[in-house]
Amino acid sequence: MWVEPIGRVCNAAEEKQDFEGLISEIEVFPEFAEGLYRIEDVPELLILFVFDRSTSYEMHVHPRGDLRNPEVGVFASRSPNRPNFIGVTQVELLRREGNVLTVKGLDALNGTPVIDIKPAVRRDLVDTSHK
Amino acid sequence: MWVEPIGRVCNAAEEKQDFEGLISEIEVFPEFAEGLYRIEDVPELLILFVFDRSTSYEMHVHPRGDLRNPEVGVFASRSPNRPNFIGVTQVELLRREGNVLTVKGLDALNGTPVIDIKPAVRRDLVDTSHK
Repeated sequence: MWVEPIGRVCNAAEEKQDFEGLISEIEVFPEFAEGLYRIEDVPELLILFVFDRSTSYEMHVHPRGDLRNPEVGVFASRSPNRPNFIGVTQVELLRREGNVLTVKGLDALNGTPVIDIKPAVRRDLVDTSHK
Repeated sequence: MWVEPIGRVCNAAEEKQDFEGLISEIEVFPEFAEGLYRIEDVPELLILFVFDRSTSYEMHVHPRGDLRNPEVGVFASRSPNRPNFIGVTQVELLRREGNVLTVKGLDALNGTPVIDIKPAVRRDLVDTSHK
């Protein structure tokens, strides 16, 4: 299946780092901006993005690239080097301005292609529909 | 980016239904089975899969296809009809037998292509590495 970016990450992370508390913007491309209608009502989002610096994968990894961590299979890890280069992170939505979301907790590098945005849990939708 | 299935869903859901409590098997293709090493240590997984019955999308949707629910943007919903046909669901791992995972809580139809499996939270990895 072919996957197309719907936006990209803008933040201060040019390389792998401690992402704790990092604020990022997600710029949704104008042709997809209508898909953000009423997203302000969703406090926690899942961001799907492409590990675009990955070039290959191995079946076993040391979590976080630390050789002191025992090897696990790639599917028991969140290594960016996986069969499909897709990352998923739950973030807090701080605000929306037009086609730009400001979020907290995204562990993706500056310029990362974003391929989807979803409510983190389906329960959010139920809450929204009764407001 | 091109995305390839690494497995498929086997369950009793032939059409959209109440998935609450449904038990599913995820058959990981033999060439990816090594990637499951030590996945038994991860109690909650994210399953990424393809909405392979979707053929198009609209920017605004009524959540759960119910016209009584106010319209929201597609990114404020979990509609299967989205720009990229990718679903993400958190499931409970009940057991692993070889290349087959038995999970609870997956809201995907029988035969759905699976494209990734990850620990639901990175905290799990820390726990695993200290066992």
